[in-house]
Amino acid sequence: MTSVILQLICPDRAGLVSALSSWIFKNRGNIHHADHHTDEGVSLFLSRLEWDLDGFRIPRDAIDAEIQDLANSLSGKAQLYFSDVFPKVAIFVSKQSHCLLDLLGRVSNNELRMNIPLIISNHDTLRESCNQFKVEFNSIPIDAESQLISKKMILDSPVNHNIDLVVLAKYMQILSPNFLQAFLNVINIHHSFLPAFKGAKLYHRAWKRGVKLILATAHYVTDDLDDAPIIDQAIAYISHHDEVEDLIRKGRGIERIAIARALTFHLRRQVMVYEGRTAIFA
Amino acid sequence: MTSVILQLICPDRAGLVSALSSWIFKNRGNIHHADHHTDEGVSLFLSRLEWDLDGFRIPRDAIDAEIQDLANSLSGKAQLYFSDVFPKVAIFVSKQSHCLLDLLGRVSNNELRMNIPLIISNHDTLRESCNQFKVEFNSIPIDAESQLISKKMILDSPVNHNIDLVVLAKYMQILSPNFLQAFLNVINIHHSFLPAFKGAKLYHRAWKRGVKLILATAHYVTDDLDDAPIIDQAIAYISHHDEVEDLIRKGRGIERIAIARALTFHLRRQVMVYEGRTAIFA
Amino acid sequence: MTSVILQLICPDRAGLVSALSSWIFKNRGNIHHADHHTDEGVSLFLSRLEWDLDGFRIPRDAIDAEIQDLANSLSGKAQLYFSDVFPKVAIFVSKQSHCLLDLLGRVSNNELRMNIPLIISNHDTLRESCNQFKVEFNSIPIDAESQLISKKMILDSPVNHNIDLVVLAKYMQILSPNFLQAFLNVINIHHSFLPAFKGAKLYHRAWKRGVKLILATAHYVTDDLDDAPIIDQAIAYISHHDEVEDLIRKGRGIERIAIARALTFHLRRQVMVYEGRTAIFA
Amino acid sequence: MTSVILQLICPDRAGLVSALSSWIFKNRGNIHHADHHTDEGVSLFLSRLEWDLDGFRIPRDAIDAEIQDLANSLSGKAQLYFSDVFPKVAIFVSKQSHCLLDLLGRVSNNELRMNIPLIISNHDTLRESCNQFKVEFNSIPIDAESQLISKKMILDSPVNHNIDLVVLAKYMQILSPNFLQAFLNVINIHHSFLPAFKGAKLYHRAWKRGVKLILATAHYVTDDLDDAPIIDQAIAYISHHDEVEDLIRKGRGIERIAIARALTFHLRRQVMVYEGRTAIFA
Repeated sequence: MTSVILQLICPDRAGLVSALSSWIFKNRGNIHHADHHTDEGVSLFLSRLEWDLDGFRIPRDAIDAEIQDLANSLSGKAQLYFSDVFPKVAIFVSKQSHCLLDLLGRVSNNELRMNIPLIISNHDTLRESCNQFKVEFNSIPIDAESQLISKKMILDSPVNHNIDLVVLAKYMQILSPNFLQAFLNVINIHHSFLPAFKGAKLYHRAWKRGVKLILATAHYVTDDLDDAPIIDQAIAYISHHDEVEDLIRKGRGIERIAIARALTFHLRRQVMVYEGRTAIFA
Repeated sequence: MTSVILQLICPDRAGLVSALSSWIFKNRGNIHHADHHTDEGVSLFLSRLEWDLDGFRIPRDAIDAEIQDLANSLSGKAQLYFSDVFPKVAIFVSKQSHCLLDLLGRVSNNELRMNIPLIISNHDTLRESCNQFKVEFNSIPIDAESQLISKKMILDSPVNHNIDLVVLAKYMQILSPNFLQAFLNVINIHHSFLPAFKGAKLYHRAWKRGVKLILATAHYVTDDLDDAPIIDQAIAYISHHDEVEDLIRKGRGIERIAIARALTFHLRRQVMVYEGRTAIFA
Repeated sequence: MTSVILQLICPDRAGLVSALSSWIFKNRGNIHHADHHTDEGVSLFLSRLEWDLDGFRIPRDAIDAEIQDLANSLSGKAQLYFSDVFPKVAIFVSKQSHCLLDLLGRVSNNELRMNIPLIISNHDTLRESCNQFKVEFNSIPIDAESQLISKKMILDSPVNHNIDLVVLAKYMQILSPNFLQAFLNVINIHHSFLPAFKGAKLYHRAWKRGVKLILATAHYVTDDLDDAPIIDQAIAYISHHDEVEDLIRKGRGIERIAIARALTFHLRRQVMVYEGRTAIFA
Repeated sequence: MTSVILQLICPDRAGLVSALSSWIFKNRGNIHHADHHTDEGVSLFLSRLEWDLDGFRIPRDAIDAEIQDLANSLSGKAQLYFSDVFPKVAIFVSKQSHCLLDLLGRVSNNELRMNIPLIISNHDTLRESCNQFKVEFNSIPIDAESQLISKKMILDSPVNHNIDLVVLAKYMQILSPNFLQAFLNVINIHHSFLPAFKGAKLYHRAWKRGVKLILATAHYVTDDLDDAPIIDQAIAYISHHDEVEDLIRKGRGIERIAIARALTFHLRRQVMVYEGRTAIFA
C-alpha cells in the first residue's frame, strides 16, 4: 500500500502540528506515522508525516502543489515522497569493492528500496563485479590531460540517468563544486579515529598510536567538510593483537554497516537536514 | 519551565493527531514534542504530547478532567504529568549494593529526576550506605514466622509514603499479587544469557556453557513474567579469560546501565505500555 | 611469510608452557604469538602457538608427526596448521542470500582466507548469484521421495571436494547424524531473542512481545544443540518503530556480522573447542 | 590464593617464551595465565605471566631481584606484582561527582581491588560525599596567590600517602611537569566527539554540529597529550531528541564505564605500556 510522506521544516510557532494534521484529516488521509521535533536553539519546527495515498481526496499528481502552498503559508520548505517510488541511485567507486558489493547484495535482497542504474569509477577494477549484478559501469579515468572532459562526464552521466542520489562508496576523488551544486543528495562514507589524524596512511598511524576504536561516518557531502550533516556512525573495537590489515578489515566492516544504515534512513525519507545537521525520524 | 506531558492510547482511526493537536492549540498550548505511533497489528494509536504549561489557557488543576473527557470521547485512556513533579520512588534491595549506589549517585547528581523517600530491604546489610545518602531505610526480614506481618509491612510502607514507583534494585524476593495490584508501577532488573538458563547459579552455568554475552533486562513487573513489558536491555561481551567472578562483575555493570536508562525513560514519561509491551518515545 | 600454528589441549600441570616453547626454540622456531589458557574448572591447559616456518629445523611434512608425539606424551590432543593453506569451504544455503553474498564478497575481497569450491542448496533460487562468483552450485532438493538419495548426495559432495569446513549460511534443513560424524567442522548461524521463543515465526512473536534486542549466534554444530560451542554473538537494538520486516532486516544484518567474524576466528585458527565451549585466542 | 604477576618488555628474539617459562618452571611455579605479544613493527616482545606464589621456590621478597637480573640479561624491563597487594590510589576531582561516586561504589562492592586513602580536590564541593565513604578529603584551592603552595601540596600529599596511582576523575586542572615526573601512573578520563572539537563548550558545539555519538577515553597522562597511551574507550549514541543536558548525561555515563574498565585492567596488571601505546592482556 502506497504511503504519502511529507517532510516539512518551518519557523516554530504554536499550532503547527494542528495545522498539518487537520489539513491531512480534512482530505481524508489516515496518518500512520507522525513525528515532530522542535529545535528550540534555532526555533525551527520539523515534521514528518506519513499517510495512506489510498482514500486520500487529493489526486496523487496534485498533492505537491497543495503542499507547497501550505509550506509557503508557513514560511517553510516541504518535500513530498511516495513510498512506491524507488529512487535512482548512482554509486561512485574507486578500487575497493567492500561497500559496493554489500550495497548490491542488499538491493538484490530487497533490503534497500532503490534502483542502481549506474556505477561510475575512476578505475576499471570493479567492472566485472558490476556486470555480474547487471548494472551499467562507466569507467571515467581521472588524469591531468582528460580532467576537463572527465569532470564533464562525471557531471553528465548522472544527469542523463535522472539520478536522484549519488552514493560515494569509497570513491577516492574530490567532487567539483559544480557537481555538488547539481546534486544536492550525495552521501559519502569514511572512517576515522580518535584522536583524529589528518592526511595519508590513517590506518598505519592509528595503529602506531594504539587507538582502541575505529569509527565509520556516513554523511551528506557539502563543499565544506566541517558542515557535512552526519547521518550515521558505527564503531569497532581494536586490540593490540590487530595488525594494520586487521584495522583495515574492521574499518571496512563498519563502513559497510554505516553506509547501509544511512541509506536505509535516507530511502525511507527518515532523514531531515537543517542547519548542517540531521534529525533521524526512526 | 514546566511542561505538560500527555500520554494517550486509543483505538486507531483517522483524525486523531488532528483532534489532539487542535485541542492543545485552541487552548494556546505550544507543543514542544509530539510523537505518535500507530500499531497496526492491534489497531491502537499511541500519542505522547508535551507542551508549555505557561500560557496554557486551562488551569493546571483542571487539565486532567478535560483530558479524561477527551480520552473517553476517543474510547481511550490518558495519563497526565507535569515535568516539575518529581515522582516518589521506593527502592527495594536485598544485599547487593551495585544498583542502589548507582541510583543514589545519579539522583544526587541530578541525572534522575526523582525523590527516594524510602528504601526497603529484607536484610540489614545496606543500612549504612543508605544512611550516608540520608534516605530512610526499612529492614523488613522475610522469614516463615513473620511472613504475614512482613507482607503487610512491605505493602503498607510505600502506601504510607505515597510512593509512585517501586524499583526492585536486586530485591531477591517475589512480590505478592496484592502488592502488584496496589502498585502498578514496579520496575525490576535482571540478567540473563542466551541460550537461556533457568533456576539457580545462572552465572556458573553460563560460564560453563561458554556463552559469549550477557544481557541485563529492565522491565515492568507483572504477575506473569512472560508478559512483563521490557523497557531496556543492555549487553556485555564475555571471553574465555573471564572467570565466574568476572561474569558477575560484568553482569552488575550492565544491570546498572539498563536500570538507569529504563528509569530515565520512565521519569521523562517516555514509556508507554500496551498489550504487554512498550513503546519508548525517546 | 608462512606461519606454523599449533593448537594443543592437555591436562594441566606445571611446566607445559616451558615444554612447548622449549621444543619450538630448540628447533629454531621464532614464536610470533603465544597464548595459553588454563581452565581451572576442568583442569585443562589450552595453548595456541604461532611461529615462522622459515628457518624452522623440522621439515614442513615432518612437523605433524613430531607434534603428535609431543601431544601424546602430554596425554593431549594437537592440531597443526600452516597459514598458507586456505581451507576448502562448502557453503550450504536455502533461499536466503544475505549471508552467502556477504561471504562471497568478503572472500573476493581477501577478507576471509578460504576457497569456496562448492555451494549446496535444497533450492535452485541462488544458482545465478553463485555462478556470478564462479562457484559450483549443486541444487539437491529435499523431498519425501528422494530423501535417501539426497542425503547421500549431501554427504558425498563435500567428501568428493575434500571439504575442510561446512558453513550453514541459512540452510534451513537439519543435517543427519551421519553428516555430522563425517564433518566435524560445521558452522551454523541463527538469530534469537530474549526472552527466548521456540518454534516457528520467531520474528513475529518477538515483535509482538516487544523485545528490545535481537541476537545472532554463530556456533559449531553438534548433535545436541544445547552443547553447540558458541563462537560469536552479535546484537542489534529494536524499537517500537520497527515492523516485523525491520526485525528481519536487522536480524540479517547481525547474522552477516556474526558469521563473518566467527569465520575469521576459525580461519585464523584462533578458536579452540573443548567441553562444549570455545576459547577465542584473538 | 596469591599470584605472582610478571610484566616484561624486551627486544624480540627467538627463545624468549621458552626462557621465561623455563625459569618459572624450574622454580616450581605453576603458570595460570601466559600471554605473549610480539610487536613486529618495533621488534619488541611483551610478556605477561601469572603463577602461584604458593609452592614457588624463590621467597616472595627475593623474586624481584631475580626478575630484574633476568630482565637485564634480555636488555628488557620487568615489573613484578602480587595479587594480594591492593594499590593505594589517590583520586583527584573538581566539582563533578559522577566518576568519584561510581568508583567509591565499586570499591565498596569489591569490584575494584584498590584502596583509596586520599581524595584531592580544588573545590570543597564533594567533601561530604567523600566523608560518607570515610575517605580523607583534601581541598587544595588553585588560585593566583597560593599557586606555588598549592602545587607543592598537590605534589606532597600523594607522596606522603605512598600513593601508587593517581586517578583524575574529572579533575579540571592541568598537572605540573613536576607532578608527572613524580607519578608515572596517572590515569585520566575525558569525553570527545568526532569530528573533533577543541576548546571550551564541547558539548554545546557537538550538539550544534549534530554528532551521532560521543566517546569517553581513559588514558595514562603524559606531558604531551598526543602521546598519551589509551587504555579504554567507550561510546554512546546521540539522537536529535537529545538536548545539551542529555549529551552531558550520556557523556557522564560512558566516562563512568571507561574509567572503571580502564582501572580494572590496570589493577589486574593487564595493561602494558610501550612506545606511547598499550597492550591490554585481557
